[in-house]
Amino acid sequence: MTQPLPAEFSLIARHFRPLAGEGALDLSDDAAVLAPPAGRELVISADALVAGVHFLPEDPADLVARKLLRTNLSDLAAMGATPLAYLLTVSAPKSTPDSWFAAFAAGLAADQAEFHLRLLGGDTTSTPGPVSLSVTILGTIRPGEAIRRNGARPGDGIWVSGTIGDGALGLLAATGKLADPDGFLADRYRRPHPRLGLAQFGVVGACMDVSDGLVQDLGHLCRASGLAAELDARLLPLSAAARQAGAEFLPLCLSGGDDYELLMAVSPAQEAALLTQAEALRVPVTRVGRFLAGPPDVTVFGLKGEPMRLDQAGWSHFA
Amino acid sequence: MTQPLPAEFSLIARHFRPLAGEGALDLSDDAAVLAPPAGRELVISADALVAGVHFLPEDPADLVARKLLRTNLSDLAAMGATPLAYLLTVSAPKSTPDSWFAAFAAGLAADQAEFHLRLLGGDTTSTPGPVSLSVTILGTIRPGEAIRRNGARPGDGIWVSGTIGDGALGLLAATGKLADPDGFLADRYRRPHPRLGLAQFGVVGACMDVSDGLVQDLGHLCRASGLAAELDARLLPLSAAARQAGAEFLPLCLSGGDDYELLMAVSPAQEAALLTQAEALRVPVTRVGRFLAGPPDVTVFGLKGEPMRLDQAGWSHFA
Repeated sequence: MTQPLPAEFSLIARHFRPLAGEGALDLSDDAAVLAPPAGRELVISADALVAGVHFLPEDPADLVARKLLRTNLSDLAAMGATPLAYLLTVSAPKSTPDSWFAAFAAGLAADQAEFHLRLLGGDTTSTPGPVSLSVTILGTIRPGEAIRRNGARPGDGIWVSGTIGDGALGLLAATGKLADPDGFLADRYRRPHPRLGLAQFGVVGACMDVSDGLVQDLGHLCRASGLAAELDARLLPLSAAARQAGAEFLPLCLSGGDDYELLMAVSPAQEAALLTQAEALRVPVTRVGRFLAGPPDVTVFGLKGEPMRLDQAGWSHFA
Repeated sequence: MTQPLPAEFSLIARHFRPLAGEGALDLSDDAAVLAPPAGRELVISADALVAGVHFLPEDPADLVARKLLRTNLSDLAAMGATPLAYLLTVSAPKSTPDSWFAAFAAGLAADQAEFHLRLLGGDTTSTPGPVSLSVTILGTIRPGEAIRRNGARPGDGIWVSGTIGDGALGLLAATGKLADPDGFLADRYRRPHPRLGLAQFGVVGACMDVSDGLVQDLGHLCRASGLAAELDARLLPLSAAARQAGAEFLPLCLSGGDDYELLMAVSPAQEAALLTQAEALRVPVTRVGRFLAGPPDVTVFGLKGEPMRLDQAGWSHFA
């Protein structure tokens, strides 16, 4: 009795097998095999993305795939790691057209090439709910050189990469609630730029990526490092589009999610090294405040230097 | 401005941080760090489970957690690997009570202890849909000793562990469609037993776990190994409860999913070694057929030795 391949397997064969790399065993076995690179430790992280929570159901599938990989790559960037491979689970409604999977796989392929990643394995299932995705990403570092959140010291500067607030403004733009003539903001929401290579062990004392809002994420760094922080909104690097939106959006820029920029603690002695690396990568970096001895706490100073209250410090994906 | 921890983070702190092991960095960083065990390769696999597709929405949360880990552990067992660690993503409706998470975490804790696993990281998000879970599991093997699906040879016996069909019958029992006086069948559906340690490299030539139905999964082994197979339904190991259900359920036992037993190709010369290992682990193993030279194809012989047709050879989680 010769059986046709069930839908799940032909889907995998058509769209995902071409993405499989060394050790994936053609996605034909129960698991993949990974020979750890000699002299390296692994850095490993998992993130879930749900349609309607982390991306818009109508977002193009190739951009959804790239956001999925890039949010995970941003975690590797925050640890100072080099990308290696990933595993993927896709739960999609049975009515999902094949063209959605084709576009999704094309987005994965584009970012695999851009970030030197390979697909190791995964799972495809149906769901009666919205498209639900997860990626587990693996990177490598030299042993002992993971950049942690607990390494900030009093007097370290608070540095951020890129511009802050575009993610939250981009969500408004993508949902028609904010003008976005050239599509810059929506693109920033849909296509983060993981800042791989920017945070180097020994230069950056503590690091995380800004995914849930700058002020909330800075709070996490403060708790991990046992420090207070002062953040000066006047120093906040804003894109031209964010400046155009106007000062009333400043609180949102400080508290909105989806920036996927790096938030770093850098001692004055290491600033030059950070700036050199930033220039080599053509990624702007900006000092926006400083860490202080004291109980974990974030003080934000507004545009007139006044202490600022934010009604909502950040975004929670479960609240 | 001191911020209360947002719901997502307090949920993680309450329920998941106690499960975190070495390298998880207390679930407080962007990623975990894993020093690969010396002289071992990693085996890595990811599976997704969706309420209403892979488990019943009303299933107790601790059993859902255990099924999630055990279906992944079953993949490690099929590769001949030893469990090491896992990452977890949980997408749950905002209305999910804290008691559900507490029970879910208790189930994870029980199986972490039973199978010597540790939690490395993950993600918790809300979803407007059903509970959607994913696990990426990591195990280790000696280099080059992963058991593949492509290693069956003509003349190898087809062996299975445990009993076959209880998973599919258990789903009927759990949904009130089949009598199950002592709850044996429903328990087999809800709580698989990964057969870790049974398939040993050098003894078992090819292996996979039976998750989508014996006949369909045997078809995968045939394709991977480039062989035909003959399966004798008279040899099928059935539980007392499956025998009690009656012969009309035989096609379902052959094609139903969720058994999570091992399907193995074993040469006659290695049968004694397999039986010795099975006895040591107190896991029954049964020869149910043989592999033959020929195009990939599964022939099933029924209870009177007649060639049998199955309307549906197996279960697809996306069809």
